[in-house]
Amino acid sequence: MRYRLYYWPGIQGRGEFIRLALEYAGADYVDVLRLSRGHSLPEKFTPFALPYLVAGKLVISQTANILQYLGPRLRLAPKGVAGRLWAHQLQLTMADWLTEVHDTHHPIGAGLYYEKQQAEARRRAADFLRARLPKYLDYFEGLLRRFAGGYLLGRTLTYPDLSLFQMVAGLRYAFPQAMARLRGEYPCIDALHHQVSVHPRLASYFSSKRRIPFNRQGIFRHYPKLDGLRNKSKKT
Amino acid sequence: MRYRLYYWPGIQGRGEFIRLALEYAGADYVDVLRLSRGHSLPEKFTPFALPYLVAGKLVISQTANILQYLGPRLRLAPKGVAGRLWAHQLQLTMADWLTEVHDTHHPIGAGLYYEKQQAEARRRAADFLRARLPKYLDYFEGLLRRFAGGYLLGRTLTYPDLSLFQMVAGLRYAFPQAMARLRGEYPCIDALHHQVSVHPRLASYFSSKRRIPFNRQGIFRHYPKLDGLRNKSKKT
Repeated sequence: MRYRLYYWPGIQGRGEFIRLALEYAGADYVDVLRLSRGHSLPEKFTPFALPYLVAGKLVISQTANILQYLGPRLRLAPKGVAGRLWAHQLQLTMADWLTEVHDTHHPIGAGLYYEKQQAEARRRAADFLRARLPKYLDYFEGLLRRFAGGYLLGRTLTYPDLSLFQMVAGLRYAFPQAMARLRGEYPCIDALHHQVSVHPRLASYFSSKRRIPFNRQGIFRHYPKLDGLRNKSKKT
Repeated sequence: MRYRLYYWPGIQGRGEFIRLALEYAGADYVDVLRLSRGHSLPEKFTPFALPYLVAGKLVISQTANILQYLGPRLRLAPKGVAGRLWAHQLQLTMADWLTEVHDTHHPIGAGLYYEKQQAEARRRAADFLRARLPKYLDYFEGLLRRFAGGYLLGRTLTYPDLSLFQMVAGLRYAFPQAMARLRGEYPCIDALHHQVSVHPRLASYFSSKRRIPFNRQGIFRHYPKLDGLRNKSKKT
């Protein structure tokens, strides 16, 4: 099966969570909009937003939904119903987290320039770094510790592990100071991040042109003014 | 099967999307936290946030995930894979929409009082009403028109229809002026909302004490200052 991924060609964004699963599994896929700007979609099922994946006759949208579909097919999902519902729950929690990351630079409106909402962005980013970031990191660190196999679902890597890697990679790019201050507090997450980064197929992907660099059009953005201000210890 | 729903007892919130499916289907369920404050959870699978549903040995969290699980069991989901992925996509799109509704009154941080972010809330709500609300309504109206059977997936009601009903009900409560101005522009959505509201089991639920009234602790909140300001026609 050749999968066709549709996503904005200039950013990692939400599409990257899908690319990582496809690249890790060595799947056959085309990143359609990076190859040609013109594209057509089946008319009946029009998703609300990118990304979407075309798999044969199926058109699937919403990142977590796509990963839920791909997971078993790429051998990146647990086998039982309980495990699959749980993996999907983890993915949806990261989707919420990602939206909060996005809103640190766009707290007023996604359609307005950052420069038009910079003051609000500083407040929102400070609140995110103080109250939300540790909450999410604590949660995933706690799961890794409890399942104690190196991965979120135990001893085998599943697609939410790749997404957690991407969250950490993006957060380190966007908030280097805040993340540096937390370094060492989340050893299980750090180990998972490292483990994924050195996987042979992914390491080759990361050094290829297929991996779009982080940039200021994406969801993870580095604005020094939003990084590390008023970030207290995670214990407070 | 007796389902056990765990959600904040004082608000409709995200739990209401699940309650509506359970009530519509006449399912056997307990709204656990409304009956007793003390509760215990299986330790291994701890969800990040409420709501979650306990179904036998399963603990399922994230509203859309719960509905995806309940859908086929309550006869509220389409039968094929394509239809189920599509229904889930619709539900996840409404989850995004709901988060945007929440952020109209909490654009800076969910943990801060509304009064501490009122100026930002006015900007965000205005942007939401101008740019986002019509985009979502246009999308769902377009689908209803295209499938032309009265429901989002055609002639049979599925769980996303109940959620779309709830979005409209909540928006009419929170933004009565803005929604009144749009009245008549979304005839298919209005018809669906009406259809759901008069369903015998739901009508009886709505007039019971089990239906928590909308209020200012929930996700849909009515603050007159956030309603209808600078809301332009959906065509602009």
